[in-house]
Amino acid sequence: MQHTNLTLMTDFYQLMMMQGYYETKTYKKKVVFDLYFRDNPNKGGYSIAAGLEQAIHYINELSFSDEDIDYIRSSGLFKEDFLAYLKEMRFTGDIYAIPEGTVVFPKEPLLRVKAPIIEAQLIETALLNIINHQTLIATKASRVVFAAQGDSVLEFGLRRAQGPDAGIYGARAAMIGGCISTSNVMAGKLFNVPISGTQAHSWIMSFEDELTAFREYAKIFPTKCILLVDTYNTLKSGVPSAVQVFREMRENNIPMPFYGIRLDSGDLAYLSQKAREMLDEAGFEDAIISASCDLDENLIAWLKFQGSKVTLWGVGTNLITSKDCPALGGVYKLAAEEEEDGALVPKIKLSDNTDKITNPGVKKVLRFIDKTHHKIKADLIALEDECIAYDQDLTIFHPTATWKKTTLKAGTYTVRELLVPIFLDGVCVYQSPSVMEMRAHCMGELEALWPEYKRLVNPHPFPVDLSDKLYELRRQMIEEARMF
Amino acid sequence: MQHTNLTLMTDFYQLMMMQGYYETKTYKKKVVFDLYFRDNPNKGGYSIAAGLEQAIHYINELSFSDEDIDYIRSSGLFKEDFLAYLKEMRFTGDIYAIPEGTVVFPKEPLLRVKAPIIEAQLIETALLNIINHQTLIATKASRVVFAAQGDSVLEFGLRRAQGPDAGIYGARAAMIGGCISTSNVMAGKLFNVPISGTQAHSWIMSFEDELTAFREYAKIFPTKCILLVDTYNTLKSGVPSAVQVFREMRENNIPMPFYGIRLDSGDLAYLSQKAREMLDEAGFEDAIISASCDLDENLIAWLKFQGSKVTLWGVGTNLITSKDCPALGGVYKLAAEEEEDGALVPKIKLSDNTDKITNPGVKKVLRFIDKTHHKIKADLIALEDECIAYDQDLTIFHPTATWKKTTLKAGTYTVRELLVPIFLDGVCVYQSPSVMEMRAHCMGELEALWPEYKRLVNPHPFPVDLSDKLYELRRQMIEEARMF
Repeated sequence: MQHTNLTLMTDFYQLMMMQGYYETKTYKKKVVFDLYFRDNPNKGGYSIAAGLEQAIHYINELSFSDEDIDYIRSSGLFKEDFLAYLKEMRFTGDIYAIPEGTVVFPKEPLLRVKAPIIEAQLIETALLNIINHQTLIATKASRVVFAAQGDSVLEFGLRRAQGPDAGIYGARAAMIGGCISTSNVMAGKLFNVPISGTQAHSWIMSFEDELTAFREYAKIFPTKCILLVDTYNTLKSGVPSAVQVFREMRENNIPMPFYGIRLDSGDLAYLSQKAREMLDEAGFEDAIISASCDLDENLIAWLKFQGSKVTLWGVGTNLITSKDCPALGGVYKLAAEEEEDGALVPKIKLSDNTDKITNPGVKKVLRFIDKTHHKIKADLIALEDECIAYDQDLTIFHPTATWKKTTLKAGTYTVRELLVPIFLDGVCVYQSPSVMEMRAHCMGELEALWPEYKRLVNPHPFPVDLSDKLYELRRQMIEEARMF
Repeated sequence: MQHTNLTLMTDFYQLMMMQGYYETKTYKKKVVFDLYFRDNPNKGGYSIAAGLEQAIHYINELSFSDEDIDYIRSSGLFKEDFLAYLKEMRFTGDIYAIPEGTVVFPKEPLLRVKAPIIEAQLIETALLNIINHQTLIATKASRVVFAAQGDSVLEFGLRRAQGPDAGIYGARAAMIGGCISTSNVMAGKLFNVPISGTQAHSWIMSFEDELTAFREYAKIFPTKCILLVDTYNTLKSGVPSAVQVFREMRENNIPMPFYGIRLDSGDLAYLSQKAREMLDEAGFEDAIISASCDLDENLIAWLKFQGSKVTLWGVGTNLITSKDCPALGGVYKLAAEEEEDGALVPKIKLSDNTDKITNPGVKKVLRFIDKTHHKIKADLIALEDECIAYDQDLTIFHPTATWKKTTLKAGTYTVRELLVPIFLDGVCVYQSPSVMEMRAHCMGELEALWPEYKRLVNPHPFPVDLSDKLYELRRQMIEEARMF
């Protein structure tokens, strides 16, 4: 994707609607779209925003080539004046977004696009694709890291990812969400993140015996010497051979800054305990026990619960595909529209499913941080032009269960606006931090989240409330619409 | 991916092992690896091979750039002679593969790689990534198409796919598996497959009322006029407005080769029946009723079971992510290894899990077709150099349940070898058919599969048997290994 212009990566109906707007002469009308999701993946209590840097790249590259235009023309459905317009089209609007690595919640706009309707419509599909994917995987990774309780988590999923980009950008998102490294060399190069790896069963099998395979490996990589011990028999052959090789290294005074074993099958709780005993008895208390084998956050939590001695977890398929929830249902909904006098008028989409009714208007997201504990107290979705009096007591209430209220005492909290300017009049005004900086930001965000919201099962719902003004606007618009 | 060299898209341990093989001077040793999977996705009865064309592209492009080498060097783990070797490295081996669109079963090698171990090791990760992904999605698509019982299925999932490639190559795989078109414009251009689309709720909402929105759309796209009827109220507003517009078109003698409605929410069985009545009463018996809304093969089957009148199904998230089974567990296992005298010696990987014990040796896959019904009778995995006497009765037996036998009478069957040469001595000797040709091949393959293997729930297991010689070799090797 780094080297590809994705302008044509859109749903065909976007092009059809764009021609429609062009023909009806409404295409310059400015509109505001919100990109948000309705539910955290995996029934979790929070999500981690990710993918913005690739979204920016996409917007910056946005332009139809002659070849693209020829292809669109070949459908026979488009007129030449529209195609001529497309040829010159660039993104000219504003985009505000929540930076990558930020903890986010359902209904909060991750991106807010204000642009001529014809542009805003085109970019819907690619923005959703990119943000949905990376937010999903960053969130999953943060769950796995949470389960590991301070142990390190490595991203190992490239071979089972849904195509090259899913492997590459999935690794990126996994790093943002808290993994300490990836096995994916290309991701390492593209995003300047640590890469790691050891050896496969095929390495062991290509030597006459396990001991020789270990010895040869230790000779070549003495400073990163993690030996895979389950090819033949973990406790009878693998661990004893590894201990033998470590002894030889010690006897030869070879420095061993990073060494140990990897378990890749069998009962990891039992095997890691036995292996720990064998390593400790031989005086290798600092040997690392790492494991891989169909791991996810639940299995890691249970293995730790059962006294596993693994401290380095390689997580593949289940992380890179977010296996138990492989799609984030991000949507892109109209929130406001320019009238002929230039004013932006709020729009609402109703639905029989109340959860699908949108929040109208141009909005901002405010995050309240408790000054005492430095924890996130609540988020508030408010209208962009609303002035929230930060120096007074503030009562916030749940948008549907309105009897649920919290009062934030003046002086006890600070406030942060989550949406920051990314594009203004089509010009990018934002410099993405490095992926490792995003990761650090994410770790800080999670530190500021009370544990009840991070619990993997049945977390407490985090309060994302609506400002009085937005709540009232929404209520009025629903009532007006219902009158017809 | 089309424009990207993916050489660096590999697991870091492959590079570490490659340096290991290089240092131990064993790197030129030829080995044979099989790429196969152990279980059909979604507990199905078959899978559809896909992704070969992209795998070929990857192999053809294989070469480390100076920048790649610099990056690898920067880890500090690699020696200059190895890096110099990498710089010149190209793929020099042989690859045989099963063509895309072919029905395949567990344990059958989809690809067979014979190459110097250092090359065979490098390409493992990317081959698995590409083949795992596309085979998974082609299989899922064929399940959805099967459930639709002759209705058309459109691929609509781009916005929820796991990144750009997952959307683009997922659309490709979905076409191979039987979809009739995709909403993904880039996939349409890259693979020369039909694209389709209509309008979104935002189109409807951007006009003062639904009727105007429909009328404007019909004016611009009279020949592809599918109207989205659920923005306000499907039966009270949407369908009546659509009927009104169709009437106006008819009155004005506008040709309507392809027109109808799209349902995107609510109870699709009920709404489609009511809508059908309303359209029929107005004399629009040929109006199409299409639907989208969280569909998958099970829901489509149930909707049809309950008398739904939908005949065109747009399937998004659940297809493009294979939501209930988002990863195919393809593996890449050593099957043979060159001895010093140049002979290829079979290798086996044992496991406590008998299902994970590999099939040793260089193998071929034979497919037996019944001459009477033109149905696939059975597959046989045999050794490459084995001569199966086609003009005699042939008894095949189940590899683990050996009492299960079938005798194929001489003269009643034909035989096809599934693995065809793709690369010979590093040169590509295969020209991929077009995606639509692969799709046609797939339809033919599925036609030749008895219904009991296609059932979505609890299908009958298809017989993939081992030749006597392979069975005996495997048995001997297991026994020998167990003696130690």
